[in-house]
Amino acid sequence: MKFDVFTEMEYIVKSESTLILNINALRTQHQTVLSEEFIVDPYIKVEELPATGGENHMVRFEVKNPGTVKVTYKATVDNSYKIVDYEGQYETPVAQFDHSILPYLYPSRYCQSDKLYRLAHNMFGHIVNPFTKVIALTDWIYRNVEYLSGSTNSETSAFDTVTEQQGVCRDFAHLGIALCRALTIPARYFTGYAYQLTPPDFHACFEAYLNGEWILFDATKLVPLNGMVKIATGRDAADTAIANIFGDAELSSIVVSCELADQGFEPLMYGHIDYTGVAYL
Amino acid sequence: MKFDVFTEMEYIVKSESTLILNINALRTQHQTVLSEEFIVDPYIKVEELPATGGENHMVRFEVKNPGTVKVTYKATVDNSYKIVDYEGQYETPVAQFDHSILPYLYPSRYCQSDKLYRLAHNMFGHIVNPFTKVIALTDWIYRNVEYLSGSTNSETSAFDTVTEQQGVCRDFAHLGIALCRALTIPARYFTGYAYQLTPPDFHACFEAYLNGEWILFDATKLVPLNGMVKIATGRDAADTAIANIFGDAELSSIVVSCELADQGFEPLMYGHIDYTGVAYL
Amino acid sequence: MKFDVFTEMEYIVKSESTLILNINALRTQHQTVLSEEFIVDPYIKVEELPATGGENHMVRFEVKNPGTVKVTYKATVDNSYKIVDYEGQYETPVAQFDHSILPYLYPSRYCQSDKLYRLAHNMFGHIVNPFTKVIALTDWIYRNVEYLSGSTNSETSAFDTVTEQQGVCRDFAHLGIALCRALTIPARYFTGYAYQLTPPDFHACFEAYLNGEWILFDATKLVPLNGMVKIATGRDAADTAIANIFGDAELSSIVVSCELADQGFEPLMYGHIDYTGVAYL
Amino acid sequence: MKFDVFTEMEYIVKSESTLILNINALRTQHQTVLSEEFIVDPYIKVEELPATGGENHMVRFEVKNPGTVKVTYKATVDNSYKIVDYEGQYETPVAQFDHSILPYLYPSRYCQSDKLYRLAHNMFGHIVNPFTKVIALTDWIYRNVEYLSGSTNSETSAFDTVTEQQGVCRDFAHLGIALCRALTIPARYFTGYAYQLTPPDFHACFEAYLNGEWILFDATKLVPLNGMVKIATGRDAADTAIANIFGDAELSSIVVSCELADQGFEPLMYGHIDYTGVAYL
Repeated sequence: MKFDVFTEMEYIVKSESTLILNINALRTQHQTVLSEEFIVDPYIKVEELPATGGENHMVRFEVKNPGTVKVTYKATVDNSYKIVDYEGQYETPVAQFDHSILPYLYPSRYCQSDKLYRLAHNMFGHIVNPFTKVIALTDWIYRNVEYLSGSTNSETSAFDTVTEQQGVCRDFAHLGIALCRALTIPARYFTGYAYQLTPPDFHACFEAYLNGEWILFDATKLVPLNGMVKIATGRDAADTAIANIFGDAELSSIVVSCELADQGFEPLMYGHIDYTGVAYL
Repeated sequence: MKFDVFTEMEYIVKSESTLILNINALRTQHQTVLSEEFIVDPYIKVEELPATGGENHMVRFEVKNPGTVKVTYKATVDNSYKIVDYEGQYETPVAQFDHSILPYLYPSRYCQSDKLYRLAHNMFGHIVNPFTKVIALTDWIYRNVEYLSGSTNSETSAFDTVTEQQGVCRDFAHLGIALCRALTIPARYFTGYAYQLTPPDFHACFEAYLNGEWILFDATKLVPLNGMVKIATGRDAADTAIANIFGDAELSSIVVSCELADQGFEPLMYGHIDYTGVAYL
Repeated sequence: MKFDVFTEMEYIVKSESTLILNINALRTQHQTVLSEEFIVDPYIKVEELPATGGENHMVRFEVKNPGTVKVTYKATVDNSYKIVDYEGQYETPVAQFDHSILPYLYPSRYCQSDKLYRLAHNMFGHIVNPFTKVIALTDWIYRNVEYLSGSTNSETSAFDTVTEQQGVCRDFAHLGIALCRALTIPARYFTGYAYQLTPPDFHACFEAYLNGEWILFDATKLVPLNGMVKIATGRDAADTAIANIFGDAELSSIVVSCELADQGFEPLMYGHIDYTGVAYL
Repeated sequence: MKFDVFTEMEYIVKSESTLILNINALRTQHQTVLSEEFIVDPYIKVEELPATGGENHMVRFEVKNPGTVKVTYKATVDNSYKIVDYEGQYETPVAQFDHSILPYLYPSRYCQSDKLYRLAHNMFGHIVNPFTKVIALTDWIYRNVEYLSGSTNSETSAFDTVTEQQGVCRDFAHLGIALCRALTIPARYFTGYAYQLTPPDFHACFEAYLNGEWILFDATKLVPLNGMVKIATGRDAADTAIANIFGDAELSSIVVSCELADQGFEPLMYGHIDYTGVAYL
């Protein structure tokens, strides 16, 4: 499926600053970037950074002089996903996880899974099928946490959200990740462009590692699971921030969009009768 | 300098469990493991894991049957360190950090640097020399945080310690890391064997990335900086736990030691008149 | 019903200290103290303090010289309680609460009801009968929070316990109070001697204000509700600490007991079929 | 000194709600309310509540029907304060505090003094004169915490502010109170109208109990200490909220003012050369 993604961000820079932006569509085996433009106006030479601490494709540049800087990113992406059937499946024992997966079991800045152990086991520990287990915790988040723009900030973590029960997509994702890890299911943060997100913005959801596949889950249920264009994955939002700013620069405006550049899109959401997960590769 | 390091840990295992231990001396360019033994009694085949999310050399094994399991680790290590002079140096701009260093700038589970930004800048922001800056924050921790065994637990983080001002080596390290990151100095957790630590135990301190070198700092001032045998580095204790246990197993006893297997050890601590840091490679 | 209550506490005092103890059985309309002894050995003149910030009967004394101080308290108490029937009852509107009740609606040190608003409403908001509502949240605490000696400390609050799901009687009480207040039900901390508590110790539970009566609830379900001898009530444990110590004194031993001094005790616990609450007056 | 104080608040009420407002100038020995008007439009009969849990004069009323409700409060107040000299004074021992003062030593919702014990002692424990000690901690807050509208919310507590070092008057007051209590100085929250506050709003500061007098301190240094009209005192903002709303009502606009109705006002701020405190009675 093809998507046109677009970001325009304007920064007011007051003193020499370094910006690291994380807005590029990832290039993976099944996500091809057909065309791409990254423009900084006024012109600044940017540096593309190899991935670190997860999947990402960050861009770094220095703004030497105060003023307004506009960043425009456009890409056309052709991506695909895989359907994985979990009917009759059991959880993978920790002894069989590839070593590279282990960091996604540990607690992180916004996902204090160590504090949610009992709660996660009390609520979801009895469910045998791993896919059903993550569906159950995703549904619990969806039913209990209210989506409220502006209700949380960059310090809000899963430990807050599990009790305060309000937040935005980032908070829904962090809570999903923390619950998975508390249940010994590796989980990571997914940030991307999302088709049919209203109002248009970057989106965050999460991936759980089930029997060898990273399966996508979205506790907000705001968008179809098959309309995502992946930007990055990481342990949580600390790894995958859209922008890291060093210096005195402030975002003054942002426009994001994700449009279908293809035909025949059939929205896919998880139901409660089957066991098929969506994996972006 | 040569050291004999030793660990003996006994676990009472109540049901099938997987243990991932992180007690092996790291093999690096300047830390040679001359001899090494890792014994599980009763015998279980163990799996050595390649490093993930930092430097480490973990060992994983499954205990299928309930009972007592004893793990013994012995090694003789020859390691060396480098002295780096920071007199007249300035901080490296973020624009020049290698991409692999960036994750050590971000907040992590126990090092919420995002919450310490103002405090760190109010207290240490005026110091120009980066080595002096980290010495200053290390000294501040040393003077203000009381070393109190048992005063904290596995959930205690830098955000707690900065106010509660009590803790163990792990807490001193987390606070040092959080303050560094808040000051845009990459920092990571260091866990190892430490010569002359009383009572003998694993030790934790931290490394700050100063002009291209990872320099060791220890806010506890409990041991010489040149008596360390590195086990692992990572973002914080979540990455570098001595043991991760999945299942129902409990540590029932532990013995750790680090002895000099050489002659002519001259203890090294940072003073306040020079600018030379210690880097383990 | 008559009970013999007893406390013996030994303090090691290292420098001049003031102790405020809160161990005396309260004298109320329905709790008569038949006989009572409060001995400090070596002898120190004590001062009985009128109640402040709740119901209590504290005793204050100064220890001028270092050494060991032993406090012994013995009393025989005759108390009674009232059975209140809530069948078919509705909640009292806030507009009708007596002004003296209002402080028990506000959040306090260990009962951050302001953070539990959504959670409390999502779980218990639909229950109409106020007694049934508090029974439901008490049962939820009982089923989900594990009673684990030593798992928490004097800083643990309801906001921690609701997620970490472990604690002691104090934590169970704080969570019950916080949930009630989040549901606009006034609630307060109750500390006392408890008959049949094993091992013997001071006990904590809570009272909810239902249609004009303070009804006792105990989410630990460790003891009969009709075997309590009230020491104090207050907003939370900050108001009703067994001991407040100013200076350098440390508790070195404690013995507490509560024995029946009567016959025909019939243990009373709330069931799920009736609507009758227990009120100590 | 005479002041005209004024509040106009508009609420959009969506369902039957009870409002408890805490905006009336307190009537005390030295604060006389010369004239006063409290108008609810459309007309609703209000109930004046006797003080509970501190000093306050709350007003309660029920809004039965959805719609807009406007509350207007106007008063002319004649108040005076006392100057207390602390030169050469020592702290009052706890053994001599009146029992009614003790609750102001305990931690409360927003003032977790129990967590600030070491920090407070490390920073201010060496200062002998109690007035100088509170001046020192007030100055520390003033120098280190940045006054930033909107940077905090109704859940922010002293434990957050001591590290995050940003906030509004409420946060400055909570931190001052918590530090005092950690130093065994009773302290309470003070809310009032403040002359020369820009932009005009309600103000919060705190009182410390020094040798028998409640002395006013304001770590924001935004207004003269002698231009305050007291509304309430309490343990913290939980006791003294301007408005407690039960039901679905939202503040849609607010105007507050405090004007001089007299002549010859000479602004008073604490300097660093004398030992004279201001006490409102």
